[in-house]
Amino acid sequence: MFSEYQHLIDLNDYPVSWWKKVVELGEEIYSDPAAFAHECDGKIMATLFYEPSTRTQMSFQTAMIRLGGQIIGFDNPANSSVAKGETIKDTTKIVSNYADVLVIRHPIAGAAKAASLTADCSVINAGDGGHLHPTQTLTDLLTLKIEKKTLSGLTIGMCGDLLNGRTVHSLCKALSMFENNKFVFISTSELGMPAYIKDIIKANGSSYTEVNTLEEAIVDLDVLYMTRIQQERFASEEEYLAQKNTYVLDRKKMLLARKDMIVMHPLPRVDEITVDVDDDERAMYFKQAKYGMYVRMALIMTILKEKKQSETLKGKVFGGVKCSNPKCITNHEEYLPKSFRSSGDETLLECEYCDERKLI
Amino acid sequence: MFSEYQHLIDLNDYPVSWWKKVVELGEEIYSDPAAFAHECDGKIMATLFYEPSTRTQMSFQTAMIRLGGQIIGFDNPANSSVAKGETIKDTTKIVSNYADVLVIRHPIAGAAKAASLTADCSVINAGDGGHLHPTQTLTDLLTLKIEKKTLSGLTIGMCGDLLNGRTVHSLCKALSMFENNKFVFISTSELGMPAYIKDIIKANGSSYTEVNTLEEAIVDLDVLYMTRIQQERFASEEEYLAQKNTYVLDRKKMLLARKDMIVMHPLPRVDEITVDVDDDERAMYFKQAKYGMYVRMALIMTILKEKKQSETLKGKVFGGVKCSNPKCITNHEEYLPKSFRSSGDETLLECEYCDERKLI
Amino acid sequence: MFSEYQHLIDLNDYPVSWWKKVVELGEEIYSDPAAFAHECDGKIMATLFYEPSTRTQMSFQTAMIRLGGQIIGFDNPANSSVAKGETIKDTTKIVSNYADVLVIRHPIAGAAKAASLTADCSVINAGDGGHLHPTQTLTDLLTLKIEKKTLSGLTIGMCGDLLNGRTVHSLCKALSMFENNKFVFISTSELGMPAYIKDIIKANGSSYTEVNTLEEAIVDLDVLYMTRIQQERFASEEEYLAQKNTYVLDRKKMLLARKDMIVMHPLPRVDEITVDVDDDERAMYFKQAKYGMYVRMALIMTILKEKKQSETLKGKVFGGVKCSNPKCITNHEEYLPKSFRSSGDETLLECEYCDERKLI
Repeated sequence: MFSEYQHLIDLNDYPVSWWKKVVELGEEIYSDPAAFAHECDGKIMATLFYEPSTRTQMSFQTAMIRLGGQIIGFDNPANSSVAKGETIKDTTKIVSNYADVLVIRHPIAGAAKAASLTADCSVINAGDGGHLHPTQTLTDLLTLKIEKKTLSGLTIGMCGDLLNGRTVHSLCKALSMFENNKFVFISTSELGMPAYIKDIIKANGSSYTEVNTLEEAIVDLDVLYMTRIQQERFASEEEYLAQKNTYVLDRKKMLLARKDMIVMHPLPRVDEITVDVDDDERAMYFKQAKYGMYVRMALIMTILKEKKQSETLKGKVFGGVKCSNPKCITNHEEYLPKSFRSSGDETLLECEYCDERKLI
Repeated sequence: MFSEYQHLIDLNDYPVSWWKKVVELGEEIYSDPAAFAHECDGKIMATLFYEPSTRTQMSFQTAMIRLGGQIIGFDNPANSSVAKGETIKDTTKIVSNYADVLVIRHPIAGAAKAASLTADCSVINAGDGGHLHPTQTLTDLLTLKIEKKTLSGLTIGMCGDLLNGRTVHSLCKALSMFENNKFVFISTSELGMPAYIKDIIKANGSSYTEVNTLEEAIVDLDVLYMTRIQQERFASEEEYLAQKNTYVLDRKKMLLARKDMIVMHPLPRVDEITVDVDDDERAMYFKQAKYGMYVRMALIMTILKEKKQSETLKGKVFGGVKCSNPKCITNHEEYLPKSFRSSGDETLLECEYCDERKLI
Repeated sequence: MFSEYQHLIDLNDYPVSWWKKVVELGEEIYSDPAAFAHECDGKIMATLFYEPSTRTQMSFQTAMIRLGGQIIGFDNPANSSVAKGETIKDTTKIVSNYADVLVIRHPIAGAAKAASLTADCSVINAGDGGHLHPTQTLTDLLTLKIEKKTLSGLTIGMCGDLLNGRTVHSLCKALSMFENNKFVFISTSELGMPAYIKDIIKANGSSYTEVNTLEEAIVDLDVLYMTRIQQERFASEEEYLAQKNTYVLDRKKMLLARKDMIVMHPLPRVDEITVDVDDDERAMYFKQAKYGMYVRMALIMTILKEKKQSETLKGKVFGGVKCSNPKCITNHEEYLPKSFRSSGDETLLECEYCDERKLI
């Protein structure tokens, strides 16, 4: 299946050279935003937020406005007649008549991909459940590019709930594509990085180590990427109380870190970084949000300029085979072709919407 | 009562020549939108949606943006302080200080008319309960104008729940004003077109037939206008199960239709048109939504340019006579003059807000 | 503590000369809005409404748009991920990366001040609970300036619930700074103007009288400022029924007033002004809303142009001393420095966020 519009559903749909191009354009815009103030004059972006994410939505809206474009959209699914009952196909068919680019946030995996199959304009994935959030990864790459001047040869610590963290999974996959990056995973043993991410890291020729405390890791890091561990993820309340401070970044732990280490966080934070760290000049998480706006400007420009056809579905439909992930969009919208990629292993198929593997 | 601003509350407030002018301007904009990109520079539109209708709201917003104007508004009545307790008069008085045109959607019949009495700017009715939705009718007219090249001499099938369908009533009234149109009503006998619409059709010199199945009608149609029949409208579940497929348009029924027949639908659809019809080039419902944007551009331009006074209330107040429709705005907002038109019949008055007739 | 941006949190942070400057600029804009249509080209305003206030939000949005700027924001706290769990500091840190000015409405006293401590752009207080609403007062001043041609030598009647009325308190404080203004407080004895406001009036050299009925006061007024008395504020239902009409302005009472008296109201009204007063040319409340838009344009321009540093916290932190007001922001956001001003009296401290006094 082909679409005559460019979309960003999954970073892996593009070669690393394309990511670099977007990140470099983001850096250019950051250093001279005024030069880009009319790049999208007369263009309209629709933000279709089927679940609220005010920060992401405002970041996209500002990005479009700063390029000279205009915005429409919704953020209130319960109240929205579009969201009630209507298929994603029908909604995006209609809204793509109004807008030049759709930015979709949806609680179900594969929803943005589904939209890209039929939309009559470009689609950007602004998060599809726990599955993908490519513009967060682009944000992280631009932050590293500007603050560390490189995307290679870095030692990156990742701390918190690494098992369930969409952001860190995606960043590992991305950074392992660049040379000589080393990862240090800081977590409880129950909440460690999943095996399939470690496999990707190894396959890409990067290396990783795993440790249980922030103190032992922080000394050698170029980058510390903090995420939250929710209390309910611990085995018991006792364990939570005993361990929680191990994964909290505070001024004292910052004393152990290098002078040029930077602290990142996808935000919102809860209490995994104490407020007094904010004034440390190595704290980069608020600036990171700003870089997010610039990389989204770069992305919107890139997507709208490149008019070449993009391939949407590349896999195959296998008779009555359905994805077994109940949170996959193909189990919510009947009309979608149930397309699977082969996984290399003959007995396994990979759903093209949500990446879930299925034995056949 | 006079207003110094032009409003669109009811298409019947204008002669057919005015409708034609708006539709023709819509066609002009459609063929060269760039030529109109600055027609509303510096103008502001406020969308006051007392009930959510995301699709209609986005259509209006995009229309204004594509004319160079800007948008404000609300769509969340439960949360809106404006909607809480304040009269329509006070809200529209205030908001008309901010905006050049108000677009009002409201669950109660006559609400937009009520707003036009006191607003200090133009008012457009974007749907007042089950009563009127004039921009949908303009959308349908522009679709016919572009796709069939004419508004006359057409055979138009209307299928579904014709008893309760505001859209089809309004389109019948409009199309019967043009020459040589024939209507074919396709419905169960319980859900047929109301007598008063058939009377209007006859009075305007048009003709109609009534049939019970889509198959028998589809062969001769220039246009098939589909609407939904809700399950609960059928006499019993047995009847529903027995009949529902009769009113569903699918690929098989499309084989019976002429090559130049077009399929229209006001959207959202549920399952009255199967998804596989979407790829048929005669399926016009998504394009129809696009035409809706162009005709709204034409309407906004027309309304804002014509500065001549418009008459608002033309009827009379008859002592203590009140409208008997509980869903009429005059029974919700006390201060409104309870104005009635004579209906031709001396014993009947017609409420000027909701068109309900009342014996006196 | 210093901020490199100008904020408007409390009118009292500025000298009267500054208020005059803003009001005069508002008058200039009112008389020639087109001359200011590009003053904020390329600027973005974010409206962060933690509680809905559609009218105020639309007034700010329109003001920014009419200056050539653009708008983003939220108004739906329940649905907003920004509002959920995240501190005001983090939210405003992030959003101030996107926007040039934040307009904050919040149910808790001192919230806008808290935002101004850390935001990386200007902050305007659009109402913080029952505490302050400075742009309403600027609106009232511009209304007087245009309609009465002066801010001095006026006899101003204030009618309704004067005990709980944030608007009238603030206007008293402001107008007593100008020469020869006289106040007439019209209320039940239970709902009279608080002593501390009367003290301020006397300290500023103005005078006031108190009466119980609108009839006895209206004859001599230059200005009548109406507010609502809620039924539940009366001692009993009997008292409510006996007295309510005393505080309702109707056509009959307007007959007693001078020909050049103007009627103001912060809106929304409920029934304290009958609808038939609206057509009296002395009724100024809808125009007042319009002036609110112009004074907000003046304010945004002023705030964005003056790039000089502003002092944020001027008081001192006293060991473990906390504000005793449960509706003070310092009791909701832990990280805020609990700063107090001395009150003149050595045993009393004044919270710098909510102005509550505390014995020490």
